[in-house]
Amino acid sequence: MAAAAEQGVAEAVRKEGEGEEQVVNPWEVSAGKGGVDYDKLVDQFGCQRIDAALVDRVARLTDRPPHCFLRRGLFFAHRDLNDILDLYEKGEKFYLYTGRGPSSEALHLGHLVPFMFTKYLQEAFKVPLVIQLTDDEKFLWKNLTIEETKRLARENAKDIIACGFDVERTFIFSDFSFVGGTFYENMLRVAKCVTLNKAVGIFGFSPEDHIGKYSFPPVQAVPSFPSSFPHLFAGNDQLRCLIPCAIDQDPYFRMTRDVAPRIGYQKPSLIESRFFPALQGENTKMSASDANSAIYVTDSAKEIKTKVNKYAFSGGQDSIELHRKLGANIDVDVPIKYLNFFLEDDDELEHIKKEYKEGRMLTGEVKQRLISVLSEMVARHQRARAQVTEEMVDAFMAVRPLPNMFG
Amino acid sequence: MAAAAEQGVAEAVRKEGEGEEQVVNPWEVSAGKGGVDYDKLVDQFGCQRIDAALVDRVARLTDRPPHCFLRRGLFFAHRDLNDILDLYEKGEKFYLYTGRGPSSEALHLGHLVPFMFTKYLQEAFKVPLVIQLTDDEKFLWKNLTIEETKRLARENAKDIIACGFDVERTFIFSDFSFVGGTFYENMLRVAKCVTLNKAVGIFGFSPEDHIGKYSFPPVQAVPSFPSSFPHLFAGNDQLRCLIPCAIDQDPYFRMTRDVAPRIGYQKPSLIESRFFPALQGENTKMSASDANSAIYVTDSAKEIKTKVNKYAFSGGQDSIELHRKLGANIDVDVPIKYLNFFLEDDDELEHIKKEYKEGRMLTGEVKQRLISVLSEMVARHQRARAQVTEEMVDAFMAVRPLPNMFG
Repeated sequence: MAAAAEQGVAEAVRKEGEGEEQVVNPWEVSAGKGGVDYDKLVDQFGCQRIDAALVDRVARLTDRPPHCFLRRGLFFAHRDLNDILDLYEKGEKFYLYTGRGPSSEALHLGHLVPFMFTKYLQEAFKVPLVIQLTDDEKFLWKNLTIEETKRLARENAKDIIACGFDVERTFIFSDFSFVGGTFYENMLRVAKCVTLNKAVGIFGFSPEDHIGKYSFPPVQAVPSFPSSFPHLFAGNDQLRCLIPCAIDQDPYFRMTRDVAPRIGYQKPSLIESRFFPALQGENTKMSASDANSAIYVTDSAKEIKTKVNKYAFSGGQDSIELHRKLGANIDVDVPIKYLNFFLEDDDELEHIKKEYKEGRMLTGEVKQRLISVLSEMVARHQRARAQVTEEMVDAFMAVRPLPNMFG
Repeated sequence: MAAAAEQGVAEAVRKEGEGEEQVVNPWEVSAGKGGVDYDKLVDQFGCQRIDAALVDRVARLTDRPPHCFLRRGLFFAHRDLNDILDLYEKGEKFYLYTGRGPSSEALHLGHLVPFMFTKYLQEAFKVPLVIQLTDDEKFLWKNLTIEETKRLARENAKDIIACGFDVERTFIFSDFSFVGGTFYENMLRVAKCVTLNKAVGIFGFSPEDHIGKYSFPPVQAVPSFPSSFPHLFAGNDQLRCLIPCAIDQDPYFRMTRDVAPRIGYQKPSLIESRFFPALQGENTKMSASDANSAIYVTDSAKEIKTKVNKYAFSGGQDSIELHRKLGANIDVDVPIKYLNFFLEDDDELEHIKKEYKEGRMLTGEVKQRLISVLSEMVARHQRARAQVTEEMVDAFMAVRPLPNMFG
């Protein structure tokens, strides 16, 4: 199954017995009423589940508690993470690669998830990190000018920097600024190994799609290869790469892993997250185009309060009487899901879930707690972002050696 | 007809009444026994014929005799050459763009033709010139490493420089060295305008071809746009471009001309040549892979003599008696075709053709004259190439302003 998936199965995952199609690819996440079936996705994509033993191993090797995204199963799947940990255990290093497509000015909380997690990985393992801003992808897919995508890349870089990355270990680049040299060479090495038929199978492109779309997957693939960054990894072409990302990006890296050994490179490892749910519920990924579907990092405390109270889907009962009697359905409750991501205190989270499920805590009270968690988190982000100067962006994006890469 | 062709007709040109297919595209030139039907090609591609009036106009505007390639109809077709001449007449300038795919070390005489002609255009019009070495294309199409294509690009640059280009007006670049920045931006602007269906229609790619092939046409398109070279043409985005090339490259520029106005750029103009025939005759383009099909610029005088005598297809009769009686068929005679390219003296050429056609001159005598013309030309090229140093290559390939661009 894994091998078959690596060969590039189509993304349409039919949910057996329901006749509903679950489509998960970098441009579309649509599932049936029950939300994305992650178990099925893991099987179909051919990746591996993250179990408690693996979480323990990460904690032991890094000598710190696992990030709550990891211990709560929000990063739930991987590819060859054990290989990376084996190497690390022997004293060898690796590097991290993540990214973002800069299609909008304001990031929502879902956008922050991979960066928060990547920051934890960078600190825990003390490894270098490259962050790709795919302004070229957004030009190709959206009705945006190149100038606008470049501007958005730079604005998004500020939000990313505000997550607290270490400038001595982090290289942020935009494709429009960086494509060329060995990066371009690697793009063509990858492209030469992927037939049109295969690209269609993996990404679902149509004959009416423009050739820019068909050209793009190698661009997202090649930061997996250290030789794409000669200013960082010269002479270190076999350095392993670990990619934290949401699972919708898996098709890119399934292609990358298929190609890597054929061009003399190491397969990147992956650690993959669930989708951060929209305020309206779990059945789709959040949409940057619907302002009421998400909390943005630019939202005021008042906006957060209004959105949570008005739009966050509740698993509570219709009346207080009924709620006290039946309790909440916390499996569909969005405030609980959001707290699961962002309320760091495990004991408090368990307490809230228990009280809410058993009807002793009301939706309003849970939402109140969520509003305070999100307001504090967003305000902290806004304070950090206000400190990010143009000079700092230049520093992160400078093509330079990283002075403290494996320090 | 022109409009239809510009929309991207398939390259397969069926010769009516014969049922034979004439295929002309950048990777294949195959025709029936009668050789390439250039008249049909012009109609099918939708380009224009170069007539005597246009040749006269070029001569008048440049105040010098037209190059023999032009006055003998070897450069026989064009697209919007009159637009360029109109501008030039008003005192405005343009730039030239030509190129080569560096797939082999030694160039043959057919490879020199566009460069000899481009040198004439550069001198006659006193305009800047960009020369693209598509090492990326050759990596994608051939079984060559990137390192090898880069080495070949540099070796080929020496032969190109040996043609006598002016370093103060000429920028030579290889794609692997130069792709990036606004060049990459323009690649994506073009790619976004070309659907897969259209690319297949123009270039005949198959679903089993790799996506690198589908990605390449924009790379050859964008040197047509001055903004791809900010170090040369900053602030001069509407400067017109004239492309001298063999007509097999027309599909690239038909695509380019179709896209240009949609992305705010000028359509490039073209001036297009026939194919230089193989020694064995006119019905195919020369093949770099068959050493006996062509005279190479590295051939010794002895090799030239042997090849011409042994392989050059003769239109003479089987016996001297018959030849004296019937004369030669100069329409299929390769030595005459070669002299048509390289014997500069019009009177002598006409004399030879007349004497040969009427049987007074024998094949051996014509070949003798050709051997002396080619030996002298190749020896001159070899002397010039021996003078080309690595420093000169660096100078031509340096990303720099051209000091005497329109001087």
